[in-house]
Amino acid sequence: MKEHLPSLVTLLAVLLMFGTAFAVGRARGRYGIVAPATSGHPAFERAFRVQMNTLEAVLLFLPTLWLAATYGFAFWAGIAGLVWLVGRAWYALAYLQEAGKRGGGFVLGMAGWLAALLMASVGLGRAIIVG
Amino acid sequence: MKEHLPSLVTLLAVLLMFGTAFAVGRARGRYGIVAPATSGHPAFERAFRVQMNTLEAVLLFLPTLWLAATYGFAFWAGIAGLVWLVGRAWYALAYLQEAGKRGGGFVLGMAGWLAALLMASVGLGRAIIVG
Amino acid sequence: MKEHLPSLVTLLAVLLMFGTAFAVGRARGRYGIVAPATSGHPAFERAFRVQMNTLEAVLLFLPTLWLAATYGFAFWAGIAGLVWLVGRAWYALAYLQEAGKRGGGFVLGMAGWLAALLMASVGLGRAIIVG
Repeated sequence: MKEHLPSLVTLLAVLLMFGTAFAVGRARGRYGIVAPATSGHPAFERAFRVQMNTLEAVLLFLPTLWLAATYGFAFWAGIAGLVWLVGRAWYALAYLQEAGKRGGGFVLGMAGWLAALLMASVGLGRAIIVG
Repeated sequence: MKEHLPSLVTLLAVLLMFGTAFAVGRARGRYGIVAPATSGHPAFERAFRVQMNTLEAVLLFLPTLWLAATYGFAFWAGIAGLVWLVGRAWYALAYLQEAGKRGGGFVLGMAGWLAALLMASVGLGRAIIVG
Repeated sequence: MKEHLPSLVTLLAVLLMFGTAFAVGRARGRYGIVAPATSGHPAFERAFRVQMNTLEAVLLFLPTLWLAATYGFAFWAGIAGLVWLVGRAWYALAYLQEAGKRGGGFVLGMAGWLAALLMASVGLGRAIIVG
């Protein structure tokens, strides 16, 4: 199980991205925002920003996760990934309601990423020095 | 050949992203949309949305593809990837002409992704249970 | 060291993305652009475009880098990655000042990517033909 945790986190991150894309599609229908427009109603704009911010966060997180996993921290990077996932899901759900509520989830997601970044840096630095 | 199919799909996905970025650059020139603006002419806005939607789709697809490939479905995930590529290329070319034409390619791309997602889930679930 | 170069480039690419996201957050505060808005001041809009263009570039580059590294060019793909990083950092810093200054870094980043793309294509083509 332990060594598959980064893969599980990756699969759940993919589902989180899909969920935020789905919310944009639903908001397009509900508020009558016809593509290619990406503005026109505050709730649609929040859904759209949630999707884009989630993509940004995934693009920061997945490479960091896999570096940490490759360089000796598969289990703990996976745990950091679960923290990150909880933070990002909380962020998405709160921001969809109101932009001002996105702080808590953002901070938790950032903490998960920073933990994985520390592991990736330590693991890679050790590998480069030891040779 | 079989085991290199996910790599080939990845390379083609990179070229697809490049093609959609190129279309945005060309539309910037043709319609006189000076950076950092991302609006001002419907054809430019369609090109821009095609690029962004392609990025979103790639970010959903590549991690799913590689999970499926890692967990025992390299060949069939590669086949799903070819289906996905055809769908996404069709989507891009149709959407560049007219937003209303993007449905068919979107559905085909989604089918390719869902097939890869099923393989990734089955493969990972099996690995976790078997240990 | 040599075989860890693609990992080091990946870690630095993650930090580059973080830097451009940080610049957006700072510009939000400085120019009073309240989320979910993504326009309202030219300097904010430049910061936002820098972040998005960096994401696009990373999404083109990292899969190419890792294909090249996997198919026999770990060291030289890493060198191309360092060139790409210098180009993309230059692009970001110049574009934050003025959109018209983004050309040089863009071209250098593109050169690094094209070099890695050539390696990935040659390496993968060779693996498919040799079998």
